[in-house]
Amino acid sequence: MTQHPEESKHRTVVIVGGVAGGASCAARLRRLDENAQIIMVERGPHISFANCGLPYHLSGVIEERDSLLVQTPESFKARYGVDVRVLTEVVDIDRDAKTVELRDVDTDARSTLAYDQLVLSPGATPFIPPIPGADLPQVHVLRNIPDMDRILAACNDEQPAHVTVVGAGFIGLEVAENLEHRGIDVTVVEMAAQVMPNLDREMAAALSDACARHGVEVLTSTRVNAIEEDGERLAVQTLDGPTVATDLVVMAVGVRPAVELAKAADLTLGERGGIRVDETLRTSDPDIFAIGDAVEVTHRVTGQTGFMPLAGPANRQGRLVADIIGGLERTYGGPLGTSIIKVFDTVSACTGMSEGLAKRLDLDHRVAWISGSSHASYFPGAENITLKAIFDPTDGKLLGAQGYGRDGVDKRIDVLATAIAAGMTVDALEELDLAYAPPFSSAKDPVNHLGAVAAGMLAGAHPTIAWNEVAELGDDVKLVDVRTEKEYAAGTIPGAVNIPLDNLRERLDELDRDVPIVINCKRGKRGYLAVRILLQHGFEARNLLGGYCLWSMAVGDDR
Amino acid sequence: MTQHPEESKHRTVVIVGGVAGGASCAARLRRLDENAQIIMVERGPHISFANCGLPYHLSGVIEERDSLLVQTPESFKARYGVDVRVLTEVVDIDRDAKTVELRDVDTDARSTLAYDQLVLSPGATPFIPPIPGADLPQVHVLRNIPDMDRILAACNDEQPAHVTVVGAGFIGLEVAENLEHRGIDVTVVEMAAQVMPNLDREMAAALSDACARHGVEVLTSTRVNAIEEDGERLAVQTLDGPTVATDLVVMAVGVRPAVELAKAADLTLGERGGIRVDETLRTSDPDIFAIGDAVEVTHRVTGQTGFMPLAGPANRQGRLVADIIGGLERTYGGPLGTSIIKVFDTVSACTGMSEGLAKRLDLDHRVAWISGSSHASYFPGAENITLKAIFDPTDGKLLGAQGYGRDGVDKRIDVLATAIAAGMTVDALEELDLAYAPPFSSAKDPVNHLGAVAAGMLAGAHPTIAWNEVAELGDDVKLVDVRTEKEYAAGTIPGAVNIPLDNLRERLDELDRDVPIVINCKRGKRGYLAVRILLQHGFEARNLLGGYCLWSMAVGDDR
Repeated sequence: MTQHPEESKHRTVVIVGGVAGGASCAARLRRLDENAQIIMVERGPHISFANCGLPYHLSGVIEERDSLLVQTPESFKARYGVDVRVLTEVVDIDRDAKTVELRDVDTDARSTLAYDQLVLSPGATPFIPPIPGADLPQVHVLRNIPDMDRILAACNDEQPAHVTVVGAGFIGLEVAENLEHRGIDVTVVEMAAQVMPNLDREMAAALSDACARHGVEVLTSTRVNAIEEDGERLAVQTLDGPTVATDLVVMAVGVRPAVELAKAADLTLGERGGIRVDETLRTSDPDIFAIGDAVEVTHRVTGQTGFMPLAGPANRQGRLVADIIGGLERTYGGPLGTSIIKVFDTVSACTGMSEGLAKRLDLDHRVAWISGSSHASYFPGAENITLKAIFDPTDGKLLGAQGYGRDGVDKRIDVLATAIAAGMTVDALEELDLAYAPPFSSAKDPVNHLGAVAAGMLAGAHPTIAWNEVAELGDDVKLVDVRTEKEYAAGTIPGAVNIPLDNLRERLDELDRDVPIVINCKRGKRGYLAVRILLQHGFEARNLLGGYCLWSMAVGDDR
Repeated sequence: MTQHPEESKHRTVVIVGGVAGGASCAARLRRLDENAQIIMVERGPHISFANCGLPYHLSGVIEERDSLLVQTPESFKARYGVDVRVLTEVVDIDRDAKTVELRDVDTDARSTLAYDQLVLSPGATPFIPPIPGADLPQVHVLRNIPDMDRILAACNDEQPAHVTVVGAGFIGLEVAENLEHRGIDVTVVEMAAQVMPNLDREMAAALSDACARHGVEVLTSTRVNAIEEDGERLAVQTLDGPTVATDLVVMAVGVRPAVELAKAADLTLGERGGIRVDETLRTSDPDIFAIGDAVEVTHRVTGQTGFMPLAGPANRQGRLVADIIGGLERTYGGPLGTSIIKVFDTVSACTGMSEGLAKRLDLDHRVAWISGSSHASYFPGAENITLKAIFDPTDGKLLGAQGYGRDGVDKRIDVLATAIAAGMTVDALEELDLAYAPPFSSAKDPVNHLGAVAAGMLAGAHPTIAWNEVAELGDDVKLVDVRTEKEYAAGTIPGAVNIPLDNLRERLDELDRDVPIVINCKRGKRGYLAVRILLQHGFEARNLLGGYCLWSMAVGDDR
């Protein structure tokens, strides 16, 4: 690591924004350069607070408000020797003079600050749809500590019986869960056809199911067009949906990158309206870097440009910019978009390319689903996990993965994210030597199983059908359910006949070799063997991946 | 996938051993070849039982004995059409005639069976040290269901107040934990200087600590040389240790590969005495394959030949041999040796090359340790995790990783195992885009942190010292503890002076630039910043990785 003491003695780095990326950048830069003058300017009253923890203080799951304040301006200054200025806004950048104009939020006093390098980490602001009533005092957003304090005060003071959450992304669903924990009735209204639009539909369905089981109403494909006062309550009006009588509204329809400052300074914006940066996270001005939610990033797998308003990438971008300012040669490889959400007892997660995006991009791809156990099924506490792999049919390269379940989803998605980052093929997943003891996994981990199924598909040994292709099957296909008679009696796919797997070999003469067969079982495992038996006896057969469980979860209300 | 129906119609595959690898092989082969005659011969009464679950039924953690019987001979036959012959021993192989001689264990009746391919999956047998008293009826082993039944019967009938477990490997420690759960006092006697000799010492120390905290006595560096009857009790005599008064002994000193059959058939054995196989898992006879605990494997990272008596590799080897017999082109890449153990509330795990082995092989390597949180520290239930990386100093390639903690160790070791399999460098670990939400991780996951520390070491930015180098420090080194006064007062490394990190910059004049400094803090994080400050002010300084916590855990009783 090359230090440039002569230079650095005089270097002044101004960082705009003191949360996530900004704070990481300041801390890392100090480690690299003890002599730089580092000034971190934050519009709000807090720096480096636990943004992602805010919903959990609404319920008391996170008991102490102060535990959300990871660093205070004072502690950060003492530790890192960074000049932290909260309640201070950067209102203008003079790129020629290399100065920024500061405004004291309380007093409106102005001052000017010179910089050698400027790092923009302005974040994003909650989007408020331009509908009547959005400005009512009972309508909240949740982005920072003051927002949280306001919602909490309203819950304590007004004791709302019902809250409407508009938007079913991370914040919307986490707020819904935590308000339900408080004993408040919650309705979530989502414009899209599913919750969590970054997840493929069956993954989102598992979250909707969790909401329903815990008494949270979710209205998808429903657009709020007005919020009206109705006596002491509110009426949330929707297009094509019911009017929801409620006491308090939390708007969580997404965020918009805070680009006003960058725009006013004539920095180049990207096609999606965020700050454009190169692979060193420099803006169109080489002395100005930008990181975090306001920046357009290039997805490592999809090559798509877009926003990735997540804490992990912001943190890594902050470190990387510090490294570059500190004289190290680094480039940003782009995020994989790995993300995870817990809603009540259910977890869904994704990494890399989704099936939905592969379809929209018209990319050649295949999809495998498996269902497995979080750990050895004979050891207490084992939970079902459903995983999917999106992979390249030409070389078997893993492009994306998603999963839902309760315990152990995070582990498998992290392993799959690592595999994607390494450019692994599905064959390599099958061979991964993962840690096994009964409390943690099975001798064949679900990730190994996923790799084996995908590899079998590639080898042509395992003809399959996806849950979302079942509805398109014509009458010329024979559906065979190979579960036990008891399982079959409890519910099956409409039209399926029952031939239990262990009787299949002796009952082959009940099937017609001229009629294509689609097999279903509980989770896809018995179906695989059934298909292998049928293929080798001259039948045309395909296995419904994920079986009846995945199909019924994913199709859900559409049945 | 190429099918050879003409050939396969006549193919007879005999599999010797019906647990783990053998059963996996039979099931996979049936999927590939519906027409093969598959005969699975098992000496014991059960096939495909949950070997790794046995200790947990001793305590009732696994309540139902039957849940350990994953498949019965009948269910396996119905499902896979495999001719399963339990309580049947293969006593001889006639390689020229391609036949095996079977013996009925109950009746001693003999018969002959022809094979086209033979798969040896004989497993291993518990080693009983040749000491007086090892054959007493109160001395048990735990390898299979009848062994478990015997120990359970003895516990129920005799109500032992104290049990001695000889050997502190997987089975020994798991048996100790589960007997303690029953309310029995347990002493573990281990010949080596630490428990779990495949783990590096500090990882093993965490397990010893868990035993001590839960009232299980562990005697390391202690060799049992006799077991004597002493009235109604037993006296376990040790060399260089106490005599242990006990009621029951479980011998868990390791297993020996069951190679008698292979040896009698003149198949080549390896240098360690196991069955030698090539990369297609063929023995020296091309029609005879061997898998599982009896086989010598080549470690994927270390290149060392040895035994890997673990369920995961056995399972994958079984599948792979089935693939090869089924006509697929596959080779075995060797295991990484990934393994994990839970002892009470503590988990230790490893993958790839250990530090100990790197030292024994005199390989150029470096080691990084970090300590992090299983998930966001402000979210309930966060637990500390200590991770180490063993890496190549020339290219930064990850060679091995180990970890201990409570929650989330398994996830990080699986990510690191995947990274090793992919040939990743420590820099790449720093950039991994892992799934973050407060219940699962932090924006900077411990794996990212480990990668960052290792990368900083490689870049020369982070001079470090390991916990096991502290004892060798001479008087010419100044030890500085940068924790708070309160932390320092509660215990520190002997000789360390206290300068809290947040006061370091103003107290630099208390330190001598001519005296090398070693910094310690709680877990190594504050120490890193302290070292960065000191280096940039012209001091020579090194950071104690893992801090006081790792040092005091690892040094333990030696202090």
